[in-house]
Amino acid sequence: MAAKKLFAPLPEICRFVTDVMTAVGTPAEHAYAMSELLVAADYRGHLSHGLNRLSMYVEDVRNGTTDPCATPEVIKEKSAVALVDGKNGLGPVVGNFCMDLAMEKAKETGVGWISARGTNHYGIAGWYSMRAANQGFVGITCSNTSPVTAPLRSKKAAVGTNPISVAAPAKNDSFVLDMATSTAALGKIELKRSRNEDIPLGWAQDIDGNMTTNPDKALLANCLMPLGGAEETSGYKGTGIALMVDIFSGILSGANYGPFIRNWKNASEKANLGQCFIALDPSAFAPCFEERLSNFLDVIRALEPVDPNKPVLVAGDPEKIHMKEVSYRGGILYHQGLIDAMSKLAEELNICPLRSTVVGTC
Amino acid sequence: MAAKKLFAPLPEICRFVTDVMTAVGTPAEHAYAMSELLVAADYRGHLSHGLNRLSMYVEDVRNGTTDPCATPEVIKEKSAVALVDGKNGLGPVVGNFCMDLAMEKAKETGVGWISARGTNHYGIAGWYSMRAANQGFVGITCSNTSPVTAPLRSKKAAVGTNPISVAAPAKNDSFVLDMATSTAALGKIELKRSRNEDIPLGWAQDIDGNMTTNPDKALLANCLMPLGGAEETSGYKGTGIALMVDIFSGILSGANYGPFIRNWKNASEKANLGQCFIALDPSAFAPCFEERLSNFLDVIRALEPVDPNKPVLVAGDPEKIHMKEVSYRGGILYHQGLIDAMSKLAEELNICPLRSTVVGTC
Repeated sequence: MAAKKLFAPLPEICRFVTDVMTAVGTPAEHAYAMSELLVAADYRGHLSHGLNRLSMYVEDVRNGTTDPCATPEVIKEKSAVALVDGKNGLGPVVGNFCMDLAMEKAKETGVGWISARGTNHYGIAGWYSMRAANQGFVGITCSNTSPVTAPLRSKKAAVGTNPISVAAPAKNDSFVLDMATSTAALGKIELKRSRNEDIPLGWAQDIDGNMTTNPDKALLANCLMPLGGAEETSGYKGTGIALMVDIFSGILSGANYGPFIRNWKNASEKANLGQCFIALDPSAFAPCFEERLSNFLDVIRALEPVDPNKPVLVAGDPEKIHMKEVSYRGGILYHQGLIDAMSKLAEELNICPLRSTVVGTC
Repeated sequence: MAAKKLFAPLPEICRFVTDVMTAVGTPAEHAYAMSELLVAADYRGHLSHGLNRLSMYVEDVRNGTTDPCATPEVIKEKSAVALVDGKNGLGPVVGNFCMDLAMEKAKETGVGWISARGTNHYGIAGWYSMRAANQGFVGITCSNTSPVTAPLRSKKAAVGTNPISVAAPAKNDSFVLDMATSTAALGKIELKRSRNEDIPLGWAQDIDGNMTTNPDKALLANCLMPLGGAEETSGYKGTGIALMVDIFSGILSGANYGPFIRNWKNASEKANLGQCFIALDPSAFAPCFEERLSNFLDVIRALEPVDPNKPVLVAGDPEKIHMKEVSYRGGILYHQGLIDAMSKLAEELNICPLRSTVVGTC
């Protein structure tokens, strides 16, 4: 039987997430921060990081591994930098605080670099970099995450997907790089399996540490490969970038790092993730940054493509295309499975369920 | 006939490079800066970026496209950032100046971010990041370069190999990531051709923009692929990183960028490259950064390898192995071809040739 697809408008998703988070004891302002983050992920097409993740955050709050009421605290500071203790608060609460502090410092000194420990999963990294870019700064952020990626040559995973995001404002345009530093995400492998398709070499390893094209073997080992894949295609570069993210996240802040981070489905201990937030004021450098960047992006997009049906894109373009589609439709399309899970959650918490409309089968 | 290999001790290479640069009109201090950079590259095993590049720098000085006497100038400044005009000086002269300025600022504010324009090819990026790491800072640098890499989906090259380096001090150890953001370098393809070997898929494109395993076709097109390779193995991530480097290098500083940078073998116009130098003071964050980083690096190295003969390495380890070998031998092994070219250069400039010893054939 084909699965139904259901449609939910953005403000309604926002309302629902806020209600859910509030119902498990989250102060209104923090619940709203979570809702903005998750809706932004779904709006941008990162559906794995939107409403799909709500249950995970709720679970962490319910079993006490995340403190929904905590507000972050600056524990060490110089004019352009600060060390922040997230006090085990919600990812977006800590993240927004840190990026705002980075911007405040950047206004004064030209750049602000904030290192946070005691944090939790913070959703799409692009949310924080864009928060800076929307105010005219170049925003940079990265986070360590639970170990699911094998450093090159290693049999087992020991670092996270360690995402990094860089967003820069351009004239009527923007550059938004928002990527995991592994080649692919586990969600992509699950999708391939559901379609009975092989995965490309370079995505994942089997339990013996060999590259595999078999999604079942990949998911059994739960072991992604770093960007670049095998040694001959420079997997050591992806490994280096993943380690760099953890140095900026875990090592600099004194949070957990590498293999010492909890399993991402193990909610029995605190995550104590590390994150990094940088805001750079382009007006402190050469004039007309935004005009120059617009020109650069347009020049790249105008390159002759190998396949005329696949135009050259710059980072952030696929998301812009998705956002246009969502705006045209007026909301997000979810699978029945997710809607069912959300209905169950609403019932448990005695809140109004997500109001969605059936729009077809898929 | 097998090519001879010749051996030269480090101080002698340093003397030779200084003499060559001085003979073409470079002030002693600037000539010495160049010699330190090139010797460091050879010492670390990046032989494509050491003595092998001297002729290129000499040519740029001789035909007036680089000014060997120029000293960089700060043209805009805030407490943690500065915009520097390299005045078309030598890469290492500008680079050392900028990283020193970044460290000075980091001492005061916690971080220093310097953007430079009007610069030239600056050799191994790791030289500058390590300059900071050697003084206890986390050093970061990147540079745009001549367009030899195709953004994903593009038929032709439009961005450089755009190297990035991050060096961080650890207790009795260090992390030194120093990488081009393309999958491989042109030099690696030339090596494969000389051995009559195919190149791996993901290294390069042919003139039609298709991935090729044929080194001749790759070199004819002169078109590398970004880290990640094809679209299914996330070449868009490597593309995004390459563009990020150019945003931090060319766009921020107002230098040339992307396809507007001169062909790297075309010495008829000024390069006007852009570069970025960041120093971060880890002591402004959580205590014991170096101890924690040491532990992290050791934990990664101790991971069980897939192949017992290939231990897991961290960024900078292959270079450390090479440096040990060089120290054991007491110098660098060069191919006859390079020694011949250096002898010719010495004769032209009427300086003492590089004193080297034949050590065998290869």
